[in-house]
Amino acid sequence: MGTIAARDQGARSMFHGLSAFPITPADEHGIVDVEGVAKLTGRLANAGVDSIGLLGSTGTYAYLTRTERSRAIRAAVKAVGGKIPLIVGAGALRTTDAQDLARDAEAEGADALLLAPVSYTPLTEEEVFQHFVAVAGATALPVCIYNNPSTTHFTFSPALLGRLADVPNIAAVKMPLPAAKTLSAELAELRSGPAGKLAIGYSGDWGCPGALLAGADAWYSVLAGFLPQVAIEIAQAARAGDAANVASLNDRLQPLWTLFRAHGGLRVSYAACGELGLIQAKPPRPILPLADEVRLRVRDALSVLTAAQL
Amino acid sequence: MGTIAARDQGARSMFHGLSAFPITPADEHGIVDVEGVAKLTGRLANAGVDSIGLLGSTGTYAYLTRTERSRAIRAAVKAVGGKIPLIVGAGALRTTDAQDLARDAEAEGADALLLAPVSYTPLTEEEVFQHFVAVAGATALPVCIYNNPSTTHFTFSPALLGRLADVPNIAAVKMPLPAAKTLSAELAELRSGPAGKLAIGYSGDWGCPGALLAGADAWYSVLAGFLPQVAIEIAQAARAGDAANVASLNDRLQPLWTLFRAHGGLRVSYAACGELGLIQAKPPRPILPLADEVRLRVRDALSVLTAAQL
Repeated sequence: MGTIAARDQGARSMFHGLSAFPITPADEHGIVDVEGVAKLTGRLANAGVDSIGLLGSTGTYAYLTRTERSRAIRAAVKAVGGKIPLIVGAGALRTTDAQDLARDAEAEGADALLLAPVSYTPLTEEEVFQHFVAVAGATALPVCIYNNPSTTHFTFSPALLGRLADVPNIAAVKMPLPAAKTLSAELAELRSGPAGKLAIGYSGDWGCPGALLAGADAWYSVLAGFLPQVAIEIAQAARAGDAANVASLNDRLQPLWTLFRAHGGLRVSYAACGELGLIQAKPPRPILPLADEVRLRVRDALSVLTAAQL
Repeated sequence: MGTIAARDQGARSMFHGLSAFPITPADEHGIVDVEGVAKLTGRLANAGVDSIGLLGSTGTYAYLTRTERSRAIRAAVKAVGGKIPLIVGAGALRTTDAQDLARDAEAEGADALLLAPVSYTPLTEEEVFQHFVAVAGATALPVCIYNNPSTTHFTFSPALLGRLADVPNIAAVKMPLPAAKTLSAELAELRSGPAGKLAIGYSGDWGCPGALLAGADAWYSVLAGFLPQVAIEIAQAARAGDAANVASLNDRLQPLWTLFRAHGGLRVSYAACGELGLIQAKPPRPILPLADEVRLRVRDALSVLTAAQL
């Protein structure tokens, strides 16, 4: 029991702190630029984020083949060199495909999996439960449940999260920002129920410093994928409970949050990576690069931050 | 001009009447049972439906590889033997993949394409427009726009439908049942605007006899995929404007419509194909077969219909 509890604690700790979600640069045919992946992930590992979320939604996992996803993982594992955990998205519409992707990620050296209930036909709770049991059982890697209804079109109930918390290697959940209640109330509710065994983190960057202040375990951050130092500074203030400093740092981010909300963090990330000189890449079509006038607004939003930070 | 108008008319006529959407039987690894496809599609062609929608949502196109989709098309083209048009789903998340699927369908002998704006990252109107232009331009086949927000998570505005109606080989739209207005009002609105050039059909079987009564051009029918005679009878009554007969025939279908709405036409189709002795197949996981107690209700709902019809 002691050993299992310790192992569980170790698995959960992988899903604590600031997790950075970079884009996955690729050409128009979906062939991944592995040098670009190495550059982006190596930079994040050196910057001091707590983990990297490779092939998340911003990492366009849904648009890449199994082969290309493996190539991206291989490049990132080498570039990160074990400095921090590499959490890899293994989502796919088919259960069998997601199992294959999970095994690939383990074989390539990933430290953990992020698993989204990707849906086309709307799924029932039982279907998602059985899918997660099947995919989690395909490897020994700890799994973070990816709860992001805006892309997967499935919403986990607290009861389903509770059922999944009992699956041996399911260790964490990545939540969307709550629509109808405060972060503190949602965290208290989840932690007092059967889902309380899971490490609980949030995505939706504009609300995540607040989530850390409210005691969430993790911030799954698109911002940290291209401006890790900016995200680290605000995450540290939030985890220290310094609400005044969080508010002050967050003020400077408002122009970027406005762009995230209007155009999606993914499109903004591609533009930001170009503006920052990190990498020139386009999102997979049908997703289009931001129009020039929006890109100029991204430039302005970044200049406020980079004048102080870079 | 006359030739183009005549060709347009021909393309649009392909999207008139009752279009039957069968399941695509496949094994647990997604390998298509081509004999099963031939059996199901040959039966539909002989039954006298106006067209077949192969690899629609009910045909689990989203869950099948490019290779398996080609195998299914080849089997159906052979089985249908040109008796009626074969409309083939070419949807994919990536624009380049959808273009490849469209070319494959044309090469295998499909008569038309059904194109869904499959999304993961929520798409903008311009992204969907450019996607449709790119995929429609990949072949000479007429294209039906697949407007089904419950699976694609994208809703076409009348303005976007109007823009797409000007793309040369985009000839039709498959609409969801309107939520907030009557079918007559929606049809009048669409037909008086720039989308009026398109043939306008509906899916959502329970409301489609009413759509035909209201003057819609087509019923894209899951029911017709397994009970073509039942659907033909009610479609004929509706197209003849016999509202009383439609109401009477529709009454017998209420138990089935209740099941469609509660469990989805796809899951009911698999169960019905088994109950009717057409084919024993399971949907692709994560989608699960209906539980035994629901399957018994499918059996009961079918027995009302088949006692009179089969």
